[in-house]
Amino acid sequence: MKVAVVGATGLVGTKMLEVLAERNFPVSELVPVASARSVGKEVYFKGKGYKVVGMEEGIAAQPAVAIFSAGGSTSLEWAPKFAAAGIRVIDNSSAWRMDPTKKLVVPEVNASVLTAEDFIIANPNCSTIQMVVALQPLHEKYKIKRVVVSTYQSVTGTGKQAVDQLFSERKGEKLSADQMAYKYPIDLNVIPQIDVFLENGYTKEEMKMVKETCKIMQDDTIKVTATTVHLLLRHLFLFHNICPSPRR
Amino acid sequence: MKVAVVGATGLVGTKMLEVLAERNFPVSELVPVASARSVGKEVYFKGKGYKVVGMEEGIAAQPAVAIFSAGGSTSLEWAPKFAAAGIRVIDNSSAWRMDPTKKLVVPEVNASVLTAEDFIIANPNCSTIQMVVALQPLHEKYKIKRVVVSTYQSVTGTGKQAVDQLFSERKGEKLSADQMAYKYPIDLNVIPQIDVFLENGYTKEEMKMVKETCKIMQDDTIKVTATTVHLLLRHLFLFHNICPSPRR
Repeated sequence: MKVAVVGATGLVGTKMLEVLAERNFPVSELVPVASARSVGKEVYFKGKGYKVVGMEEGIAAQPAVAIFSAGGSTSLEWAPKFAAAGIRVIDNSSAWRMDPTKKLVVPEVNASVLTAEDFIIANPNCSTIQMVVALQPLHEKYKIKRVVVSTYQSVTGTGKQAVDQLFSERKGEKLSADQMAYKYPIDLNVIPQIDVFLENGYTKEEMKMVKETCKIMQDDTIKVTATTVHLLLRHLFLFHNICPSPRR
Repeated sequence: MKVAVVGATGLVGTKMLEVLAERNFPVSELVPVASARSVGKEVYFKGKGYKVVGMEEGIAAQPAVAIFSAGGSTSLEWAPKFAAAGIRVIDNSSAWRMDPTKKLVVPEVNASVLTAEDFIIANPNCSTIQMVVALQPLHEKYKIKRVVVSTYQSVTGTGKQAVDQLFSERKGEKLSADQMAYKYPIDLNVIPQIDVFLENGYTKEEMKMVKETCKIMQDDTIKVTATTVHLLLRHLFLFHNICPSPRR
């Protein structure tokens, strides 16, 4: 399979290449795609070097699949162009997740919703993925009414700036306000905020867990409430109090 | 008021002295009590030095109140002896909390259960205290059926060994198994275990939140489930999904 990775030189793209290699994904030819400033760089995949190409060239290469990990705005602009060229886009951003014309898929849970007509396929939030894999068999057996979930999430999810802030703090370096990903210290701390707060008082991360869960599990009656909290570098995820229906 | 602090030279005892000063608790005379190896040391309270005395001498000094923060076994042995001498014991350990003949009190919630006959008064687990203060007004208005709580607790609660482990890890020092408070790294980590695991799969810390809550709120029908997790040095405590009854 000819596979494009869009955003191949970024943190997530680099990891994607590692995972594709590690899992022996059947890649016959890799097409690393990135923004103009990375074009011409070389990335390595299974010991072989590949030249990074731009978006247009990525489409022209006609990969079977393009895995997007280049942020929401790149996905909004470029995923439709790849799709129009008959390339299946697997999108790792939040751009298409709640679009009613796009499927939001966790293979273990709802791969069956996919049809030959789906060319842009969205991939959920990381916390949602873990949760629905565990919820699905319970939902099938008992029909879930309500889920209360608490997460303990690594700041790596916020990106490079948060990780840099953490390690600067550990070295005792003073940071200016614009160098900080969060206005609070991260080291030795715990921050009950991931992404921005919304009008309803929940954060965007929390509402992703609420909405994406219903979409993936194809049941808008499941009531989810989430509390998502940032820690340092480890990820821990818990849910409890899954309320079956009928109440027993 | 003549006040004894039992365990006055320990980490918690030292903090108790600070808080008594900070809050201007009406201490007319301080009696710092500690184990034999600390007798004769001096502790400072409001700028004045006090000689540490042993248990027998602490009782002989006839304080009105003795605040115990010297661990469960010291409380089990000595609190009854102080009480027998007419001294009111406020016990910070878990020794007497679930004893049906002793009151477990959070002043904002159930001070009214105290009578002139109570000479040993237990003080709940730190996570329980915070929770019941918030739950009590809700319980009065709606009658709570169920509580789902998640904590994000500092390892300082495990004691000096855990804090030493954390700071050794931060300096890159290798620790032997017997120097570690937990068999996992603490730094940059999150450990879903506080205290030991019990036969039912919950930890002792979690079951304290379950049982103490019912005792303080004087309602054994409240169903509490707790997930308590250790972090580094900050404490964060959340509860959500308090189920009122009748269901609305």
